[in-house]
This record gives sequence, C-alpha cells and structure tokens, in this order.
Amino acid sequence: MPSYIAPTKDMQFILQELLEVENQEIEGYDDLSADFTSAVLEEAGKITGEVLAPLNVVGDKEGCTLENGVVRTPTGFKEAFNELCDGGWTGIAADPEYGGQGMPYLMGTAVSEMLSSSNQAFAMYQGLTNGAYASIHAHGSAEQKATYLPNMTTCKWTGTMNLTEPHCGTDLGLMRTKAEPQADGSYKISGQKIFISAGEHDMSDNIIHLVLARITGAPDGIKGVSLFIVPKFMVNEDGSEGARNGVSCGAIEEKMGIHGNSTCVMNYDEATGYLLGDEHKGMRAMFTMMNHARLGVGMQGLAQAEAAYQNAVIYAKDRLQGRAVTGPENPDGPADPLIVHPDIRRSLMDQKSFCEGARAFTYWGAMMIDKAHRSNDKDADGLISLLTPVIKGFITDKGYDMTVQAQQVYGGHGYIEEHGMSQFTRDARIAMIYEGANGVQALDLVGRKLGTDGGKHVMAFFELVKSFISQNKDNEALADFIDPLKQASKDLQAAGMFFMQEGMKNPNAALAGSNDFMHLFGHVCFGLMWARMAKVATEALDGNADDPEFYKNKLITGRYYMARQLPATGMLLARIQSGADTVMGLDADAF
Amino acid sequence: MPSYIAPTKDMQFILQELLEVENQEIEGYDDLSADFTSAVLEEAGKITGEVLAPLNVVGDKEGCTLENGVVRTPTGFKEAFNELCDGGWTGIAADPEYGGQGMPYLMGTAVSEMLSSSNQAFAMYQGLTNGAYASIHAHGSAEQKATYLPNMTTCKWTGTMNLTEPHCGTDLGLMRTKAEPQADGSYKISGQKIFISAGEHDMSDNIIHLVLARITGAPDGIKGVSLFIVPKFMVNEDGSEGARNGVSCGAIEEKMGIHGNSTCVMNYDEATGYLLGDEHKGMRAMFTMMNHARLGVGMQGLAQAEAAYQNAVIYAKDRLQGRAVTGPENPDGPADPLIVHPDIRRSLMDQKSFCEGARAFTYWGAMMIDKAHRSNDKDADGLISLLTPVIKGFITDKGYDMTVQAQQVYGGHGYIEEHGMSQFTRDARIAMIYEGANGVQALDLVGRKLGTDGGKHVMAFFELVKSFISQNKDNEALADFIDPLKQASKDLQAAGMFFMQEGMKNPNAALAGSNDFMHLFGHVCFGLMWARMAKVATEALDGNADDPEFYKNKLITGRYYMARQLPATGMLLARIQSGADTVMGLDADAF
Repeated sequence: MPSYIAPTKDMQFILQELLEVENQEIEGYDDLSADFTSAVLEEAGKITGEVLAPLNVVGDKEGCTLENGVVRTPTGFKEAFNELCDGGWTGIAADPEYGGQGMPYLMGTAVSEMLSSSNQAFAMYQGLTNGAYASIHAHGSAEQKATYLPNMTTCKWTGTMNLTEPHCGTDLGLMRTKAEPQADGSYKISGQKIFISAGEHDMSDNIIHLVLARITGAPDGIKGVSLFIVPKFMVNEDGSEGARNGVSCGAIEEKMGIHGNSTCVMNYDEATGYLLGDEHKGMRAMFTMMNHARLGVGMQGLAQAEAAYQNAVIYAKDRLQGRAVTGPENPDGPADPLIVHPDIRRSLMDQKSFCEGARAFTYWGAMMIDKAHRSNDKDADGLISLLTPVIKGFITDKGYDMTVQAQQVYGGHGYIEEHGMSQFTRDARIAMIYEGANGVQALDLVGRKLGTDGGKHVMAFFELVKSFISQNKDNEALADFIDPLKQASKDLQAAGMFFMQEGMKNPNAALAGSNDFMHLFGHVCFGLMWARMAKVATEALDGNADDPEFYKNKLITGRYYMARQLPATGMLLARIQSGADTVMGLDADAF
Repeated sequence: MPSYIAPTKDMQFILQELLEVENQEIEGYDDLSADFTSAVLEEAGKITGEVLAPLNVVGDKEGCTLENGVVRTPTGFKEAFNELCDGGWTGIAADPEYGGQGMPYLMGTAVSEMLSSSNQAFAMYQGLTNGAYASIHAHGSAEQKATYLPNMTTCKWTGTMNLTEPHCGTDLGLMRTKAEPQADGSYKISGQKIFISAGEHDMSDNIIHLVLARITGAPDGIKGVSLFIVPKFMVNEDGSEGARNGVSCGAIEEKMGIHGNSTCVMNYDEATGYLLGDEHKGMRAMFTMMNHARLGVGMQGLAQAEAAYQNAVIYAKDRLQGRAVTGPENPDGPADPLIVHPDIRRSLMDQKSFCEGARAFTYWGAMMIDKAHRSNDKDADGLISLLTPVIKGFITDKGYDMTVQAQQVYGGHGYIEEHGMSQFTRDARIAMIYEGANGVQALDLVGRKLGTDGGKHVMAFFELVKSFISQNKDNEALADFIDPLKQASKDLQAAGMFFMQEGMKNPNAALAGSNDFMHLFGHVCFGLMWARMAKVATEALDGNADDPEFYKNKLITGRYYMARQLPATGMLLARIQSGADTVMGLDADAF
C-alpha cells in the first residue's frame, strides 16, 4: 500500500524562507511565525499521513454505492471525516464570525495540499464545501450567511457546486435548469445537473447545493443565469434540519478515478431554492472564488505528483534490478537498487524538481490571493488573475505526467492495482478536466487575461522577472539560473509579441498557440521560482545554515529544472510562431 | 459506446504508394498487388470493426474471473475468437508448412494494428500465441514444430511467454524457477511466474507455455537460463490433448486496463517441460523474435491512439459548445461544434499527424524485418535492430499522450467510463511497460544499438536522411519538410556526438540522456516519414491523382508535424547536452 509523509520541511522552507510570510504586510500574516506554521503543518501532516492516506486505496477499491437514493461512501470515510471536522481542519481559513479559524488562504492551501496528496477523493468533500461556503460568504444576505455558514465551516453540512448539464459543460449559456419565482420570494428549481461531486453521500447531516438555473423569462445565454441555494433538507427557523427538499441523486458515475468521491446526477424536481446574489448574475456569484478554486485544482496536480513521487522513491531504493553502469553499488546483494540507473534518476529528478517548483508557485499564488483580498491590493489581484490559468493548466498537465512517470518506475508493478501507483495516475487525470478543462484555461489566458487592463498585469510579471535578473546578474553562484531564466523569459515575450501582431489579423493565430503559451508561461514561472529558491539557498549556505545539505540539494534540484526543463520554451515558441495555418488548414470533414 | 473503422485508405496509401510493396525485391512481396492488399485490409477491417470493437467495452467492464482454477473471459470473447480463427486471421503471417497463409510480416502488422485498435485485450490472446509460435518455429526440433505449430497457427491452442518472477522483471538473471532433468529427456519445472498475459483462459483447447527456467547446476545469472515448452495439457502421440500438466493459475491481477486479458500468476509444480533450443541459451531463444515483438508493441501505441482519435473526432464534430472566435459557423444551432475551436484542432492535429506518421514508421520497420528475414539482408537487420527500441519506446510514449489528448476532447465525459475514452488511455498505458519498459528501450538504444557493428547502422540511417535531403533540396514544394528534417537530423547527430565524446569519460553522461535521445530519434524518423509521404503526395498531385483532397490533406497534416512537433529536437538536444551532473548529483538519501 502506498504511503504519504507530508513534506513539511519543504513547505516550511517556502513559507518562511522563500515567501518570508511573517514579513509580508498582509493582514493576519504577522501571526505566521515559524513556530506557528510549523505546528500547523506538523499536525496536518499527522492526520493526513496516518488517517487519510491509509483510506486512499480503500476508497479506490470500494468506491461509492447508490441504493434507494442513498449514497454510501467507502469504509472508514465517515469516521475519518468526523476526525477531520472535530480537529477544526475544515474551517482553518474560514471567517471567525462563523466559527472559522481565520487563517490566511495560504495556510489553507498548504493544508489542502496534504489532504489531496493523502486522499484526493476524500479531500473533495471538504473542498467543495469550501467553495460553496466562499460563494455564500461573498454573496449571501446576512440571514443566509447566518443560516448556512457555521455548519459549513465545521462540515456538519457539506456543499456542492451545480453547473454542468448533460448538453453543456464549458458553455453554460446553453443551460436549461429552470427557476420559477414563488410568492414567498423563494424559487422552484427543476432540471438535471451532472458531474456533481459529493452531490449525495452519508458523511454530513445536510448538503447545501449551489445551483445555476434560469429564472422564468430570463434573457437567453449566460446573462440569464442565476445562482440558488438549494438545501437537501430544509432548514427550520431554529437552524435544525427539516423536511426533505425536492432534490435527489439519480445515479452515480463510474469514473477513471477518484472513486471514493460520489459523482452524482442530481435531479431537481420543483426543489425549493433561494436566490444567492443578484438575479441573472449567477456566473459572477459562482465564479467570485474562481481564482481560489482553480489554484486549488492546480495544487491537486502537485499533490498527486508528490504522493506518487514519494512512493516511486521508496520503490527505486528498494527494488534490486541490474547493476550500475559505473560498477556495482550493492556488491554484496544480487543486484543494485533501481535508483543507481541514470534514467530512473532522470525520472525522479523530473518529479522532484516539478513538485518543489510547483509548491513554490502555488504558495506564491496563494499569497497573492491573500494580498488581493486581505490588503485589497489591485495589482496582486491582477497578477494572480493572470497566473491562475497557468497554475491550473500547467501544473495539472505536468502533474499528471509526473504521476505517469512515477508509475513507470514500478514497471509492471505500476500497472497492477496492488501498489496503488495506477490510482495516482487515474486520480490525477481529473484535475486536467474539472474547474475548466485545460484548453479553456489556455483560452482564458490568451483570449482574456493577457489583455486585461491593457496588458498591465503581464507587463508587471515581466518586470518582476527582469528586476530579479538585473539584481542578480552578477551573482556567479546564480549563473546557472539567471541565464536560462533570461532566455525563457525572452521566449515568452516573443510569443506575446507574436500574438499581438498576428492575433489582430487572425485571432486563430493566437488561439492555435494558446496551449503552448500556457506551458511556456508555466516554465517561466517555475524558472523564476527556482531562481528565487536558489538565491535563498545560496544565502543560507553563505550564512552557515544549520542543514547545509538541504540547501545544496535545493540548488542541484533547481539546476536540474533549469537545464532540463526550461529548454522547452524554445520549442513552445517555435510551435506558437508557426501560427494557425497548419492547425486550421483541414476541412472538418478531413478529420 | 466508442466505434472503430479501420483506416484502410491510409494503410493502403502506405503499403502501395509510400512503400511500393509490389516493387520491393523481397520474397513474397510480388503477391502484394493493390487489389490483394486492399482485399485483406477491407476484410480485416470488417471483422475488427463489427465483431471485436463492440466487445472492447464489454471486456473492460466485465474483466476476467478466476474460480477454482478456471479463468472465464468476458461475454462474447470466445465466440469472437472462434470467428477470428475460422477466418484464418490468426495465421496470416504463419508458415504454410504448418497451416499458415505465409503472408509477409508487414501484412500481419497491418492486421494487428486493426486488432489492437478494435480490442487490445482481446488481440493479446492471439498476439502472445504468435510470439510463442515464432520461438518454436525458430528454435524447435522438427518434432516439436510438428507437434505444436499447426494448432498454434489456428489458435486452437494458444501460447504464452513466461519471463517475469515476483522479484525480477527487467533483470532476468535473478530468475529462480528450476528445471530438473528427467531420465526421459524432459524436465520437471517448478517455480512461480507473474504477469503472464493469457496465462489461463477458456478460449482455446490447450495453452502452450514457454517458460524460462534454470536447469539444476546451471551457471548463475542470465547465462544459466534455458527455455522450455510446458503445455497445459500433455499432448498425446496422436496429437490429442492428454492429462493435465502441473501448471496452474494462482491468481489474476487487477490492473489499470486491458481487463479483458487475463494477467496470471502461474505456478509450476513439477510440471513437465521440454527444452526449446539449446541449454542455457534461453534468452536467445526467447528473444529471437524481439524485433517482431517490440515493433508489435510500438504498433499498439499507434493502435490505441488511432481508435481514441477516431472517437475524439466524432465528439468534436457532434458536441456543441461555444462559438468560433471568427464568427458562428453553425448560426442556426445553439452553439458551434467543438471542432471550430483552435485548441481542439491543435489536439486533433497532434493526434492525426502522430497516427499517420507512426503508421508509416511501423510499416516501414515491418518491411525491414521482412527484408532481413525473407531476403537475408544484413543491413536491413542492422537498421531495424537499431530502430526497434525507437519504435517501441517513442511510439508507445507518444501514443499514450495522444489517448490522453483524445480523452481531453470529451471534457468531463472523457473521465467517466460511459464513453469508453478512459479505457483507451488505461489500455494504452501498458504498452509503455511490457516487452521492456521504455527506459530499458532507451538504454538498449544508447547503451547497445548505437555502437553495434562500430556504429555502422546509425551511420546508415543518417545516410538515408542525408540522401533524401540532397535529392529533394531543390524541390520547392517540399521546402516545409526538408528544412526542419535537416535541422532535426543535425540535432540527432550532435546528440550522438555528445554521447561519443562524453560517454567515454562517464557512461552516465550518455545514459542520463537516453530517454531524450530515444525521443529525439523518434522525431527524426517521423520527420523522415512525413517528408517521404509529402513527396509521394506532391507527385500524386502533379500526376492528377483521382482524389486530390487526400493528398492535399496529407501535405497539411505533414506540415503540421514538421512545424509543431519537430522543434522538440532542439529541446531534447539541450537536455542531453546538459549531461549527468544534475541527474546524478543528489545522494540517494536526498530523494
């Protein structure tokens, strides 16, 4: 069975040394002393490693079952969920006014990484609740907040997000679910929603569904869509659960992975719903927290890669096959461990340098979200809006690749289910799809975010890179980092320039390169993160750090990324600059 | 449910126009008229599309079951297998002396592509039999051949290959299964083998296991391993099935995919076995057909990508989401089909240009195998030995990526099992692992094949590329092909040079780049194939071909590959040239 040990040392390095959280002028960050963050991480590491990780394979094997409208979650899930709730973990970044611990989103992200690494399917019950909580918190009336948020903070009640219908996913303007206004101000909701994660289950007393629907007479398309709160059980005046509402689970999907999470077809049959936010502004209300949610999914790409990597390392050190090409390293044994072989190393280094780079990038992004919300910093908001599709798309694409590589280390033993390596791959696959498929992320990045506020935010990003380079260009210890970063950043600017010049004439020329651009942008962000981490590491080594090996290894890992991954930017630029002709050249019938 | 229609037109293009099979001076190729190959392809297309493809999802859902030592295959498998056998498809490339049709391996490859595309798990029952057949054919005594081959040609008896043991896969020198010589010249085989595809099932009357084992007193390591024929049922003098032999299936594995194939733990308990070939030369006997088998697995990478691609195209044309950025293309409908979106096009073009390039490459490789065997051509043998790890490793790596992309076109509908897109991904995953994991292919390529016969074969490959370039360098119609091919080939040579210079000093420097080199080599081969196909297409257009659209589309698809995929060679070269320092820099404990 695979294991998981939270990489708290690396998390702490990023929080305290890279991001220097305590020195940031963001509300609430002055509480984030090294002792405090360490204590939170260590405790979260315990429950995720000891309680949730052992249930990961159980969830995969058993899945969820639907009988007479009741969904049963896998053995042990409910008990573990209670433990998580009782420990206060579900509300660590929630508003203290409603029972939350009020920690920054950054701390919530670090804890979420552990939840996802240890048990993605399980983590979603809470993750979806957080999302629904955030929408109600941002758009609900005082009464709605008082009614729902306290129990959602503790996950006594869980939440869902209902967007997709059978004929529409990305294009929500095609939505058909209806909301009929009632005399008492409520609505009757009717329609079918699909792919509703945690739509029905046995882990909480009530389920608060957030449902997109079209009010009778609303305008066509996306501008006629409103958001509703539809509780599974009506809530009585005293806050207790009342009668069952007209919402039921019609089926649960068989999926490639995340079997432990119930993915439901939800049928709304004149269910009572309450408008959340303004009429016809449902998309806005649903997507207020989009940067949060998408960063969270990007983080899942990292989380699965990390868990898979840890187990690949264990196997590579344990499994004896062949001899090192430079001579036996385990001469008394029948063979050397896999880890002596250069191509196994190459694979492990791909994974390690990805995970550490991705962690720095997502945590930095999470800090920007805090800065935007807690300090009302418009520049931070603009920058994180720009980077969100990169975090979501690039990290989930690459994170999936890394789980495939980790599985490959096991050879045939990675293909059978016994060792759990297939599950990491199958579970990681969903992150490339949900919360906006990665092609949609690329479209959002190139078609919208690049040009937001006249391109101000992408210029700010280039300025960040440029100033780091100019501040450190004479630092010889960083030469392996500065030169590749400079080249990669140049490639990114050239790609942006190509879009500006060609995209005006032919928008397809920009969009045909959107996926490549998202990846190019991702590599530059990782390059920047690695260069910054390298700087921290060299300074720590100059300052006689306690654990010099940690920093030396950080530098080797970073050099690997710069030497072996950053050269992708040249290829991606070439693809982008080849334009749309070959991409759009065929008639649809020719496929 | 996914569908499959054999791409016979493209297959025929490759056989007749690219490879010009009828004009090749290879024994038996003069029979391969356009009418003949077309008839074979069309008939194979029928049975695979109509009989096998509908069973693909059935096999995935039901899997195989083991009860009291008996393995049951999924509903319909046995009947379909009988139909395949009755049609003579199992023996089309087998020796007429033993009831085969004696067609070239190339034709067997084309038919195998269809079998794999339509139902990979099913195709393996026959594929493994072919492998076992080939080993007996090459190394068996006259009596052994007469005893086993006729029934293996018709798949009345199927075959298996037993290599792996729990503690050894790649490193077969660690093998423990024992063979004790008996007075009558037979052996008693005892031990456990794992991951035995089609090890036990209900589709054939007998199963002929080929088992690697160590004769009592044999030398240690790989040089003490011999190969044995171990029939499930003993064969009586008159050829009928006799008593049950001491071999049984202890368990079947739960796997990520290919559920319809039974992957067995096989227990040998003093089973009667017969030496096949020479004592202690078991690896040679097992691997005589290695080029065949590995090319066949490479072809599976293509086959899954092709099937997944076909279904992605259907969905992309059918599913309405969003509007083309250049204005509605389906103005009367609620939205445009997915295929209008540039990033969906990009994905479909990736898939299409991969499949057609991979088909050309594998069929060309299969023709080289025929040339080597049928015309005893040592140069062809050397070249295909060099290219075999590239075909196996590159095409299965990329083929898997393509199934992931095809699945992505479906969005959330690709993640649930209902549409069958997850199955293509899960089934394709195994091809990167079995028949030598792709890291082992890369090692074989760089550590062994590059230097074979003093590097003669890689020089011959470069000569092929060079002469094509010099013959066509002034052909303006091919400029989009010649220039990128030249650059890519230059990158490949530079990588080879780096290995020669650095590898002498430090073998890790070469092996750290082995995976990148395999991919770099693969791109150059695809580039060469596309350049050749482009030449055929331009000539056909100049000659007023019947179906000009076919050739125009071929050129667009080829240009896509050259513009969008070949630039990977520069990145791969940069990775290779970064050497081993960052790859091998960490202590094992630092992972």
